[in-house]
Amino acid sequence: MLYVSMATFPRAEFTPENLATWPHVVIVGGGFAGISTARKLANKAVRVTIIDRHNFHTFLPLLYQVATAGLEPADVAYPIRTIFGHARNIRVRHARVVGVDQVRNVVTLHTGAEISYDHLVVATGATASFFNIVGAKDYAMPLYTLSDARRLRNRLLRALEDADVASEYEPVSLNFVIVGGGPTGVETAGALSELIAIAIKRDGLALDPTKVRIRLVDVAPRLLTAFPDTASAYAKRELEKLGVDVEFGRSVVEVEARAIRFDDGERLEAAAVIWAGGVTAVGTLASQLLAPPGPSGRALVGVDLRLGESTNVWSVGDGAAIPGGEGVFCPQLAPVAIQSGRHCAKQILRVVEGQGTEAFHYHDKGIMATIGRRAAVAKLPHGGVVRGTVGWLAWLGLHLWYLVGFRNRLRVMINWTWRYFDWPSGPRLIVADAETAA
Amino acid sequence: MLYVSMATFPRAEFTPENLATWPHVVIVGGGFAGISTARKLANKAVRVTIIDRHNFHTFLPLLYQVATAGLEPADVAYPIRTIFGHARNIRVRHARVVGVDQVRNVVTLHTGAEISYDHLVVATGATASFFNIVGAKDYAMPLYTLSDARRLRNRLLRALEDADVASEYEPVSLNFVIVGGGPTGVETAGALSELIAIAIKRDGLALDPTKVRIRLVDVAPRLLTAFPDTASAYAKRELEKLGVDVEFGRSVVEVEARAIRFDDGERLEAAAVIWAGGVTAVGTLASQLLAPPGPSGRALVGVDLRLGESTNVWSVGDGAAIPGGEGVFCPQLAPVAIQSGRHCAKQILRVVEGQGTEAFHYHDKGIMATIGRRAAVAKLPHGGVVRGTVGWLAWLGLHLWYLVGFRNRLRVMINWTWRYFDWPSGPRLIVADAETAA
Repeated sequence: MLYVSMATFPRAEFTPENLATWPHVVIVGGGFAGISTARKLANKAVRVTIIDRHNFHTFLPLLYQVATAGLEPADVAYPIRTIFGHARNIRVRHARVVGVDQVRNVVTLHTGAEISYDHLVVATGATASFFNIVGAKDYAMPLYTLSDARRLRNRLLRALEDADVASEYEPVSLNFVIVGGGPTGVETAGALSELIAIAIKRDGLALDPTKVRIRLVDVAPRLLTAFPDTASAYAKRELEKLGVDVEFGRSVVEVEARAIRFDDGERLEAAAVIWAGGVTAVGTLASQLLAPPGPSGRALVGVDLRLGESTNVWSVGDGAAIPGGEGVFCPQLAPVAIQSGRHCAKQILRVVEGQGTEAFHYHDKGIMATIGRRAAVAKLPHGGVVRGTVGWLAWLGLHLWYLVGFRNRLRVMINWTWRYFDWPSGPRLIVADAETAA
Repeated sequence: MLYVSMATFPRAEFTPENLATWPHVVIVGGGFAGISTARKLANKAVRVTIIDRHNFHTFLPLLYQVATAGLEPADVAYPIRTIFGHARNIRVRHARVVGVDQVRNVVTLHTGAEISYDHLVVATGATASFFNIVGAKDYAMPLYTLSDARRLRNRLLRALEDADVASEYEPVSLNFVIVGGGPTGVETAGALSELIAIAIKRDGLALDPTKVRIRLVDVAPRLLTAFPDTASAYAKRELEKLGVDVEFGRSVVEVEARAIRFDDGERLEAAAVIWAGGVTAVGTLASQLLAPPGPSGRALVGVDLRLGESTNVWSVGDGAAIPGGEGVFCPQLAPVAIQSGRHCAKQILRVVEGQGTEAFHYHDKGIMATIGRRAAVAKLPHGGVVRGTVGWLAWLGLHLWYLVGFRNRLRVMINWTWRYFDWPSGPRLIVADAETAA
């Protein structure tokens, strides 16, 4: 009896007393991996506690649209408590986990409180890697949390507004630099060019379009290196149509408050340096785990997703180095996070039932990136490429489908439809926590 | 020819050269008063510049719903540029005005740039007044800007989440104190009690409802002193049904980071002290104007809304002390702001046309306050009172009607409908600018 359906439990069994006798699964992290794990454990004969430092799940693939004022924060975030409102065996804790003791089987919260577990699932994800480049951590703007997205949006909009005010006397030049030509960099570049077009054409900011430049730079010789060459070439052409300067073989040596320096000596004034470079595992908890380190700071797991020698500590999602066959690891992608979360939940239920574990196999569903209105590119599982309007519609459908919660899906659909037919009405608000700024 | 309709100008007349010859009206402030003034001047034979320190207009009457997580910031804010996207004679500047020179007829922006005007409209509004109470400015939380609302929401939600985490060991007590029994205080108290009910009943936070208290305190002997006694009594009954403690004759002597002290010596721990006390005019610009000071820091204007002896400086909205007949001033209400803005625009056009000015008369449309789902109270222009479901529906309809921009109206309608039928899905996100907090 692998999947213990609710139907087999009379309702009365879900008493606090019964719950207390069931094994306690603690999940750290409410991203795709943590949520997927908890969802598979909902209404099964285990007690689940899911802990996150935010009280919401963030739909990371659309974060760049919040940063470029196409969507509101609430469109891509969903309270974790609401996701599990129906599951009587799941408890949500809004806290930071600062420590783990694999001998005593407890995690420590930022308040000092300890929570003991029978199974621990580490789903703490990844964050931006700045590769120790001088100033990057302080001044480059990553796009990994909702706060990052809000901060970047405020910076972008304020730069445009300040340039408008400054243009009272003379035309102003503005550079926005995006570092990294992967999906995040490409998508942000496309969306930013649309934002600037709206600001000038529809909002009437007094800016000379030829003086507002977006530069997408990468050390690699092409965009979207995970995609075939034809997709890379297509993405470059589409971005250039939108007025984005794409530059390859450029290595960043320093980031300043309002500038960036390259290894060839060029120093470029930049209203914002957007960091779409590599990622590294979130380290706070991972570094305390008894597990061999994997690539990019990730925790190395076995084929059943358990850490090192442990029998009850699991790691899933972007923070885990999951064997992908033939000596490689699974890529750090949302589908891997979702699938590994589900697999982990299933294995925990097997162990609880006294069964052995099974190996995880990633089912590649393809990868996608969008460039702008009606331009997207997708790599299919077996290497084919889809692009243009068909690719864009596929991208749109897929993202709406995966958005957590019907309500958000409806809101995003309304926003997107609106944007498509009537650009200027996007939520281009500069809302800072501090009122001191202009 | 008072209202110069667009039809009398052939399209070609709207050239940059023609625009430059028209009188320049500078409006400082994008609240109800400033927006109403600019709207009436749209497509007339004047050049208009509207300057605000935010790039959006805020629908203040619904701010308390953002603070209590019923609405999103974008539901009550609208980019000023978007409002005037259609008007070719209106320019929007996102800047702070730091000075005015009524001799040279220029205002100075925070950047140092000067903008000269033929007519200046001061619509800088009001802000919270802390009456010099010790600690109030630093620790009490007003509700006058979108940032205020976000900050308060984060504080409220985080207090509930922290209490949930702390309840691991023992039950936790929480007090929320609201100072001020006017419409803002009453509306916030009602909405906060709904938020707490959701948090406990639907989100499953481990809190004892009897230990989470809302106290609404006022020095006056009744709520809603601008309303008749029956309305005050009704509001008190409804709030008490929602579990709010209403306390009269209480005078605050000090506000601390997490506590409040009263003149009778009581010191109360409080997770948040919400400041719904009095208002005072925003002082930065008003204090530099050559005008006799009016009550609450407001600039005293003549019956035609011009300041003191000036022929070309006007003041409208909450920041103006507008004669209301029989020695009293018009109240600081949205309808006064809207009507005075429209009147001011009309008078500027009259002056431009060489005509004399007319006196402003406020048309009282009544006042309203809502307490909760299906409970609101309205005072009609001639003193009658409407309450209960009818009052609530009237309140709902009126607020939606006045919300700037169809799109926001639609979003708010969706949110409210959703909330009404399915409470738990509200956007209860804690999104801080800083990631350091738990």
